[in-house]
Amino acid sequence: MKRVVIVGVGFAGLRAARTLANKGFDVLLLDRNNYHLFQPLLYQVATAELEQESIVYPIREIIRRWRGVHFRLAEVWGIDLERHQVLTANGVIAYDYLILATGSVTNFFGMDTMKRYGYDLKYLNDAVVLRNQILSSFEYAAQKPNASERLALLTFVVVGGGPTGVEFTGALAELVHHVLSKDYPELQVKDIRIILIEAGDSLLSNFPKKLQDYALFKLHRMGIEVRLKTAVSGAESHQVLLKDGTSIPSRTLFWAAGVRASSLADALPVMKVRGGRIIVKQDLTIEGYPNVFVIGDMAYLEQDRQPLPMIAPVAMQQGEYAGRAILQGERGRPIGPFYYRDRGSMATIGRGAAVAHTMGFSFSGFSAWVIWLALHLFFLIGFRNRIVVLLNWGYEYFLLKRQIRIITQEKKEIKR
Amino acid sequence: MKRVVIVGVGFAGLRAARTLANKGFDVLLLDRNNYHLFQPLLYQVATAELEQESIVYPIREIIRRWRGVHFRLAEVWGIDLERHQVLTANGVIAYDYLILATGSVTNFFGMDTMKRYGYDLKYLNDAVVLRNQILSSFEYAAQKPNASERLALLTFVVVGGGPTGVEFTGALAELVHHVLSKDYPELQVKDIRIILIEAGDSLLSNFPKKLQDYALFKLHRMGIEVRLKTAVSGAESHQVLLKDGTSIPSRTLFWAAGVRASSLADALPVMKVRGGRIIVKQDLTIEGYPNVFVIGDMAYLEQDRQPLPMIAPVAMQQGEYAGRAILQGERGRPIGPFYYRDRGSMATIGRGAAVAHTMGFSFSGFSAWVIWLALHLFFLIGFRNRIVVLLNWGYEYFLLKRQIRIITQEKKEIKR
Repeated sequence: MKRVVIVGVGFAGLRAARTLANKGFDVLLLDRNNYHLFQPLLYQVATAELEQESIVYPIREIIRRWRGVHFRLAEVWGIDLERHQVLTANGVIAYDYLILATGSVTNFFGMDTMKRYGYDLKYLNDAVVLRNQILSSFEYAAQKPNASERLALLTFVVVGGGPTGVEFTGALAELVHHVLSKDYPELQVKDIRIILIEAGDSLLSNFPKKLQDYALFKLHRMGIEVRLKTAVSGAESHQVLLKDGTSIPSRTLFWAAGVRASSLADALPVMKVRGGRIIVKQDLTIEGYPNVFVIGDMAYLEQDRQPLPMIAPVAMQQGEYAGRAILQGERGRPIGPFYYRDRGSMATIGRGAAVAHTMGFSFSGFSAWVIWLALHLFFLIGFRNRIVVLLNWGYEYFLLKRQIRIITQEKKEIKR
Repeated sequence: MKRVVIVGVGFAGLRAARTLANKGFDVLLLDRNNYHLFQPLLYQVATAELEQESIVYPIREIIRRWRGVHFRLAEVWGIDLERHQVLTANGVIAYDYLILATGSVTNFFGMDTMKRYGYDLKYLNDAVVLRNQILSSFEYAAQKPNASERLALLTFVVVGGGPTGVEFTGALAELVHHVLSKDYPELQVKDIRIILIEAGDSLLSNFPKKLQDYALFKLHRMGIEVRLKTAVSGAESHQVLLKDGTSIPSRTLFWAAGVRASSLADALPVMKVRGGRIIVKQDLTIEGYPNVFVIGDMAYLEQDRQPLPMIAPVAMQQGEYAGRAILQGERGRPIGPFYYRDRGSMATIGRGAAVAHTMGFSFSGFSAWVIWLALHLFFLIGFRNRIVVLLNWGYEYFLLKRQIRIITQEKKEIKR
């Protein structure tokens, strides 16, 4: 029985495993977490709308009915491509086929101060830490007599006008206006500032102009200051530094302006592009290693002369492809090159407001928002999770309430 | 307007605040957390049945409609009883009346090794840490080739046969038998041991003999080893040491064998009994300080020559009493001494199995369990929380599923 080792149980790894389940393979999933994380809703955990448990699902529960699929909690340190071995903290694991799918991490582009003082949103813990930071800022602001310190605590700077920055900013504005403004009668709403900074000249750069304008209009209406063509140069504990030499007093900086391949890619002696992504062939394998697939955010592949984006739909399609490629390869019926079918993209801005772009059509407003909700509920794993998420969304939509606004003990660890 | 400062927003403090709300007082609530915790369900968070967010409720949401009641996130360091001041990390707060209700902490009775290697269950974070420890033990056991290490990882020792120990042990046994045994086909169920140790000669010592026997019978049937008249003397990282000189190889020791007044009581120069509880007069004030009330687990008061137990119903009744005493005192109509109305006690052992004792009647089995569920749902704060908890209980009861079995990043911090 051939052994397939899959490193990383995100969208890509999970699809690959599902494709290979019940097919006579010995499939071993490795991940340093025991759950699959639904990353697209992380920002809702960070803005006190969802509990962290509702957007994850235990891997062992998912694979219970997948014959031949096993899981091991493991931190993978490296790969010995010549000997076909995965190196983990608890020893070496041999493979016949390897699928690497450890995704991406935040790219601070070498700005150490940003890494030190900024917050990012890649892992479950990040979301809880950011939520704690936002809520703690309000609690401390309610206590501080010093006006400038209070203003810094109540100024939230978001860097990056892509979907993550836009979705987070909108959700934060609603948290502030629907909930926190009532929670803190001792604070004045006019003192609370949310600033969205984007280096380029538009938000949501991959969307049609019409939708970009809609997003900008909506964010403005929600009281968010959007600063386009503005670049950030660094951070200190109490302010954000801009390239033009000015600064914004702020205690909370959320960095959503870039991702790069996860550090496992750095450990591999193979061809990479900027951002550490591994160059793969049309069949998603690495040059010279036909039994090693790299899929999802880690993989760099061009299609129609454009690099494929680092998004969930690409990861899922590549996962399925890698599984099928191994399956059909073993049956002596190799399949054609990978081709990404773009079904469109969407982003939500707030309650009843989203943008969607699919098959040449652009939607915005309530209809796009309903589609967004439905799709996210559909892709979320677990019936219980769907009910809990729907319940929270109902509370938000009908009652303007967010009840997960608790400050737990997770704090940002300053990594040097 | 007279200012009442309430330290601690547990069952006692919250009831006191509710009694004083909308009555023309300036009531200031202080707590180091921004949420009220429903402690009776902590053990279900620790056993992967409930998400931590479902048993807490934001204090600012609770008090939103309570006129005159405010909240401040604060760590209280001490009280200046002579100057009528509360000392916090962020300055001094003056009071006319003071209500101290910071509850209790785990009592390790000076056993440092227990404190170091044992787990306890008082705060929200404790429950998450204990859950992570249990789930991680299974993950590591699935990887370890060494048999003795595997057995130590799969042996869970619970010390203390009171309601907390019994409820946790039963819930852990069901987690293991309904869920984890299916999650880990690579482990053998016979290797998993749950040991409940009690120094006295019976479990649930405050319950009638019939109910004690029922609990013992049920726990036996669930495969739990109950060791009565057994005392623990210490712990090491890989074993629990017993007073008789033997030891039990185990990586997880849950200490549920004692509580003591929270450390704020130690900082007060007033009369205390064993366990640091502050001796209060019949009107719950401290001798010589008629404007300072001590209520809940912190307070020591005898009734019918027996000390009142450190349980939620006592705390709630004392909270209400303290509020009324201040209210009526200000109106010049002092009220009589505090009298605790014992409405009974109950403990749940497992699915469809609980014991209850009220007004001279003893129940056990399914009926007691249904009453237990109903009462806990009733006292839990928040409609959303009730739905989420009910959903999880339904999953547990009908599908034998627990989906919160995720390992997050919270780990026990070894405090020296």
